Amino acid sequence: MPTPTKDRILDVTAELFRRYGYTGTGLKQIVAEANAPFGSLYHHFPGGKQELGAEVIRRSGQMYFELIATIVLAAPDVLTGIADAFTGAAVVLRETDYADACPIATVALEVASTSEPLREATAQVFESWIRGLTEAFVGAGVERDAARRLAISIIEILEGAFLLCRAAKSTEAMEVAGETATAAVRAALAGTARD
Amino acid sequence: MPTPTKDRILDVTAELFRRYGYTGTGLKQIVAEANAPFGSLYHHFPGGKQELGAEVIRRSGQMYFELIATIVLAAPDVLTGIADAFTGAAVVLRETDYADACPIATVALEVASTSEPLREATAQVFESWIRGLTEAFVGAGVERDAARRLAISIIEILEGAFLLCRAAKSTEAMEVAGETATAAVRAALAGTARD
Repeated sequence: MPTPTKDRILDVTAELFRRYGYTGTGLKQIVAEANAPFGSLYHHFPGGKQELGAEVIRRSGQMYFELIATIVLAAPDVLTGIADAFTGAAVVLRETDYADACPIATVALEVASTSEPLREATAQVFESWIRGLTEAFVGAGVERDAARRLAISIIEILEGAFLLCRAAKSTEAMEVAGETATAAVRAALAGTARD
Repeated sequence: MPTPTKDRILDVTAELFRRYGYTGTGLKQIVAEANAPFGSLYHHFPGGKQELGAEVIRRSGQMYFELIATIVLAAPDVLTGIADAFTGAAVVLRETDYADACPIATVALEVASTSEPLREATAQVFESWIRGLTEAFVGAGVERDAARRLAISIIEILEGAFLLCRAAKSTEAMEVAGETATAAVRAALAGTARD
């Protein structure tokens, strides 16, 4: 069962990963910001930074998925839901001075060629997002194979937009991404209607 | 004027950034792999890692742009050129065990909230890519404003695909990205034909 200390360590690490990445986040920084004794880190994560990292990746991925699902499910239809998700991403970028974007993208690129356990954790998160979005599009009537390709595209566009927006400190790329994503969803739904 | 030692340092650093990122690349590792004396690094880059980093970002960005431009210009038309670029990206990912992807994406995410000079260097690279692609689409008859939005979309899709492919060690996401990107180019060219 998660303890308050364990939860604080996970929350703080997730925030540090999002802003500074995996390599740029130190264990001393984590315990300092979590206001936790150093020993508690190894008590909760005997495998050290790698074990903590894998759990943070899975947890952040799950929380982000739930956030997006909440936005999409609150909308009257999936097309509006996707549009709302991109609009919301632009608002969060502006409000956090372009710090809060994808919770796992920085880490995923850092670990892709350096840590198989962490790479696998990021792969599982992306696959869970793809499957979740695929179900949403299948639910809206898109054929399963096309729905999976559409889900992959939407995530690619969002991730690419986070990268360009953070680099440029501008939301132009997210606005363009929202247009491209909704056009792709609209085309897939129209394909369904024609069948 | 670049010296052989300076060039070796830049080449080695670019390769290390691509695989391990900015934070994960140490100066000792750079001089060891470049077979250069430590002092030569500070001789050529008095500003240390940050100055070296900014030059590597600009240089890698320029070289990658030239690679993509060569592929696109070798094709009979811009639509085929974009398709070829995505196919080529998938081949390189497979052949390098998913290590060689975008030369600056990892660094761009790492530095976005930690170093303004390096963030600006990555922003300039992305903007140069956007402008280059915009000109290619304008040359194919797309109206300038639509051409810029299309260029941003294509780069977003490519970057998102690099992220998903490296995480999953699979080219599925790049194949989907190629389809999405060519569909977007085809739609923009068709819009032109209707005008």
